Amino acid sequence: MSNKSLIDTLAARLGAAHVLTAPDDVAPHLAETRGLYRGEALAVVRPRDTAEVAFAVRECARARVPVVAQGGNTGLVGGGVPAGGVVISLSRLDRVRTLDVLDATITVEAGCVLARVQQAADEAGLLFPLSLASEGSCRIGGNLATNAGGTAVLAYGNARELTLGLEVVLADGRVWNGLRALRKDNAGYDLKHLFVGSEGTLGIITAAVLKLFPKPASRATAFLGLASARAALAAFGHLRGRVGPRLTAFEYLPRFALEIVLRHLPGAVRPLAGDHAAYALVELSSPAPDAGAELEGLLAGLIEAEGAEDAVLAQSDAQGRALWRLRESLSEVQGHEGGSIKHDVAVPVSRVAEFLERATAACEAAMQGVRVCAFGHFGDGNIHFNLTQPPGMDRMAFLAAWPRFNRIVHDIVHELDGSIAAEHGVGLIKRDELLRYKDPVALDLMHRLKAALDPHGLLNPGKVLPDRVLPGDLLPGEAPPEREGSGGAPAAGSRSGAAA
Amino acid sequence: MSNKSLIDTLAARLGAAHVLTAPDDVAPHLAETRGLYRGEALAVVRPRDTAEVAFAVRECARARVPVVAQGGNTGLVGGGVPAGGVVISLSRLDRVRTLDVLDATITVEAGCVLARVQQAADEAGLLFPLSLASEGSCRIGGNLATNAGGTAVLAYGNARELTLGLEVVLADGRVWNGLRALRKDNAGYDLKHLFVGSEGTLGIITAAVLKLFPKPASRATAFLGLASARAALAAFGHLRGRVGPRLTAFEYLPRFALEIVLRHLPGAVRPLAGDHAAYALVELSSPAPDAGAELEGLLAGLIEAEGAEDAVLAQSDAQGRALWRLRESLSEVQGHEGGSIKHDVAVPVSRVAEFLERATAACEAAMQGVRVCAFGHFGDGNIHFNLTQPPGMDRMAFLAAWPRFNRIVHDIVHELDGSIAAEHGVGLIKRDELLRYKDPVALDLMHRLKAALDPHGLLNPGKVLPDRVLPGDLLPGEAPPEREGSGGAPAAGSRSGAAA
Repeated sequence: MSNKSLIDTLAARLGAAHVLTAPDDVAPHLAETRGLYRGEALAVVRPRDTAEVAFAVRECARARVPVVAQGGNTGLVGGGVPAGGVVISLSRLDRVRTLDVLDATITVEAGCVLARVQQAADEAGLLFPLSLASEGSCRIGGNLATNAGGTAVLAYGNARELTLGLEVVLADGRVWNGLRALRKDNAGYDLKHLFVGSEGTLGIITAAVLKLFPKPASRATAFLGLASARAALAAFGHLRGRVGPRLTAFEYLPRFALEIVLRHLPGAVRPLAGDHAAYALVELSSPAPDAGAELEGLLAGLIEAEGAEDAVLAQSDAQGRALWRLRESLSEVQGHEGGSIKHDVAVPVSRVAEFLERATAACEAAMQGVRVCAFGHFGDGNIHFNLTQPPGMDRMAFLAAWPRFNRIVHDIVHELDGSIAAEHGVGLIKRDELLRYKDPVALDLMHRLKAALDPHGLLNPGKVLPDRVLPGDLLPGEAPPEREGSGGAPAAGSRSGAAA
Repeated sequence: MSNKSLIDTLAARLGAAHVLTAPDDVAPHLAETRGLYRGEALAVVRPRDTAEVAFAVRECARARVPVVAQGGNTGLVGGGVPAGGVVISLSRLDRVRTLDVLDATITVEAGCVLARVQQAADEAGLLFPLSLASEGSCRIGGNLATNAGGTAVLAYGNARELTLGLEVVLADGRVWNGLRALRKDNAGYDLKHLFVGSEGTLGIITAAVLKLFPKPASRATAFLGLASARAALAAFGHLRGRVGPRLTAFEYLPRFALEIVLRHLPGAVRPLAGDHAAYALVELSSPAPDAGAELEGLLAGLIEAEGAEDAVLAQSDAQGRALWRLRESLSEVQGHEGGSIKHDVAVPVSRVAEFLERATAACEAAMQGVRVCAFGHFGDGNIHFNLTQPPGMDRMAFLAAWPRFNRIVHDIVHELDGSIAAEHGVGLIKRDELLRYKDPVALDLMHRLKAALDPHGLLNPGKVLPDRVLPGDLLPGEAPPEREGSGGAPAAGSRSGAAA
C-alpha cells in the first residue's frame, strides 16, 4: 500500500477533518516541549474512539508504517516525537466512562486531561492523587505510558500503582480489553504492567481503570530550613517514621534553587527569615481535622531532635499554596539563569544525601562556575539534578557539555544502585544512556518483549530501545557456542551493536 | 545428556546430599497440600544460593529437562507439582540479606519463611504486612511467584504491590539482577511485574526487595452481625469512606460458616448473643493510640446509619485474637462437614453482594442440600466461594460435581467482570478454566510472553498455560513468509493454532 492510499483509507474511516497532512496542522505534533528534538510525520490522525485507534493501527501495520501515540505532548524525553510515520493523537478520546464510589475507581479514556480526572474524582468526594506540573495539559494516557511520578508518589505511588486495568491497542490493531476494576486477580500473567511505562512501544493505551482514595480531612504544609542534604535526610526519616504515608510530600530545594525562585518569581516571598543551605517543603495529610496542630508538634520535635535550623507552618490554605508555588515554579525560573543541563534520577532514599554531596562536588569540579540546581522528590529518592550554566558563559557552549555531565552524574547514580530515568522516562534522550548502564540481561529481556509484542517494530520505533535489535538465544551452549552467559548481546548480524 | 549424567553433574556441584533421588526423599515434593494432584520427578535439588540455582537451571536446560521451583509447597492450585523433571527446592536460600529502616525495605532470599520476614521487620520496628494462613510454612518466593493475597490486601495490596525489586533465574540459567530499592524507576520496561504471579513459568525468583511500613500505634477488632451480604456491603462502604486504608480488614462470614466454626473449633465462643444471616470481622489500624475508641464510635454509626444488627468490640488483644481465630480456622473446620468444592474468585467490590446472592441461589438450586460456605476478603471483592456437601451424601459423589459447580460459579463471576483466580493462582486446577474464560487476546499475549522468555517450555510446563501452545501471528490476514523482524516469535509450522 502506498502512503497515499494509506492516508485515503484512514480519511475514509476517520473523516478527512481528522487526518491532518497540511504542514501547519502537523507541525505542533512534530515539536517537543523543550525543543530538543523535531520529528517528521506522514500525517496526524485524530480517532474518536478505541475502534478508530485500532483501525488506524491496523492499517498502518498492514502498510508497515510506524505509529507514535501522543497525548498532551508534554513529555520531557522526546518519547512522542514521530520519525516519519503516523502520529495517533488521542486527544478526542477524552471521556470519563464511569466512576464508582464503592469500588473507588474511575474509568477514563486515554485523552482525558489529568486535571479533568482529578476534578471528576473530587466532584465524587474522592481523590485521584496523581499530580504534576503539566496536569492542566498532559493527558492520562501519556501519564500511564510513561508511568508518571509527581508530587504525591510518597503516599500514593506512581501512575503504575494507581492503575487497576487497561484497554490497549496492540501492534496489529487488535484490542486487549483489560478494563477490570479488581483488587485481586491472579488469572494469568499481569499484562497491564507491561504497557504502563513502555512509552507506546509495546501497545497504545486507550483507556484505564484507576484507583481513587478518600480525601484527607485536613492537610498542613511547612517549610524547613536545614544545614545540609544530610540534615534533610534526618528530618525525612524522623517524619516518615512517625506518620508513615500520611507524610504526603517531602520536597527538597538547595539554597541556590530558592534564591533563583525569589529572584525571578513575581510576588515570591522568602519563607524563612534566615538563610539555610537546604530547604524542604513538607506536607502532612490527616484523616482528622487537625493536620496543622499535628505538624506543628512534629516541627518542634524536628528542631529539637534532628537539629532542623528553622521551620514555618502555613497558617492558611493561601500560605500553603504560596509555599508550594516556590517549589513548583523551579523548572520555569531556571530558564532565567541561562542554559540548564537536566538529569532525572533516583537512588535509594537512604543514599540521597550521599548522592547530592558526591554529584554536586563532581560537577563543580568539572566546570568552574557551574551552579547545581538539584531539587525534587527527596522522599522518593528522586532528584532533578539540574545544572545551571556559569554566569556569562555561552549557552550553547554550556549545553555542549551535556554528555560530559551525563557521564559524571549517571556514573554516580549507577554506583549507588540508582536509576538514570526516574519519572520522566527514557524516550530518545536517555536511550543510549540506558544501553550503557542497564544490565545486559535486563536489556535482552526488554528486546525479547519488544520482539514478542511488536515483531515488525512499528510502535514508536527507536524510543526506549534502539530500532530492530533482535534478541539472542535463550539457551546458551548452542550456536554460536561462545555466547554462553553473555545474555543480552544482540544476535550477530543485526544492525546495531547495543548493550555490550 | 542422559538423565543419569544430569543428576551426576548436579550432584558434583551441589553435593550429593542436596540432590535427592530416593523415593522417600522425593515423595514430599510430589504431593500437594490438598491431595488433588501427585506428580513425579527425576530428582529434587536443594541449591544453597542463587549461583547454584542458576547452575541447576542451566544444566537442566541443556538436557531439555523441565524444572519446577518449590518454596514451602503450600500452594492450593497444584502449581508446584512436578511433571517428570527436576524439582528445585529453594528452602536453603533462606537468608535475610539486608534491612534498611530509612529505605523501609528488606532484601530476602526466596526460601525465607513468610513469618520470618514478618519477624525481621518487626524486630526493626517496622511492619511487613503480607499475612496469610500458611505464613508459618510458606516461603516468600512462593508468595511472590503466586502474587499472594491474604488478610492485609485492603490496606497494603497484594504481594505484587509490596515488591520493589527481584532477582530471577531465567530459563537458560542466566540471572537477572533487579534487586533495586527504588521508589521511582522508569529506566526501561518493568520486568519484575512479569515474574510476580507467573507461578514459576517465566523465571525462578531467588530474592526480592520488599517494602516495609510503619507499625500502627494501635489496632482494634470488632465483629458485626448483619442481615445480609448487602448489609455487609453497606457497612463496608460506610467504614471505608470514613477511614480509608486504615480499615485494615473487612472479612465476611455467612451464618453457616460461623456455625461450623462454633461446632468444630475447640474453645470457640459465639461472639454475638444473637443469630445473624451474615457477619463481618473488622479491623481498624491507627497511627494514634486510640483505635479502640475510634472503632467504637464507628460501630455506633454503623448500627444507626446502616442498620447493622449488632456489633462487639474486642476489649483486649486476646479477645481480638479470638475473633480472628474464628475467621482463620474456617478453611480447616470445613473438612469436618465432609467434602468441599472450592472457588477462589473476585468481583468488583461494588458487586460482591450481588455475586453472593446469585451464586448462592444458583448452587442451591443445582443440588439439593448443598451448603454454601462463602467467606473471605469481602473488602477486596475476593470470596472463597466454597460448597460443603449435603449431609450424608457420598463425599466422592459430591466432589464429582466440581466441574458442574465451576461452570455455575465461574459463569456468574465472568458476567460480573470478575476473576476466576483471585489470590491462589491458576496452577493446574484453574488452567482449563482460564482457557475458557480468558479473553483470547490476553491469552495470545500470555503465550507470546511464555515463548519469548521460555522458548523451550522448560519452566514449570503445563502450569497456568497448557504446555507448548505457540502463539499466532501478530499480523492477522498475512502469510508466514513476511515474518521479517519477527524476532522472538517462534517459527512457523509450530504445533498448535492457539489463541486466534
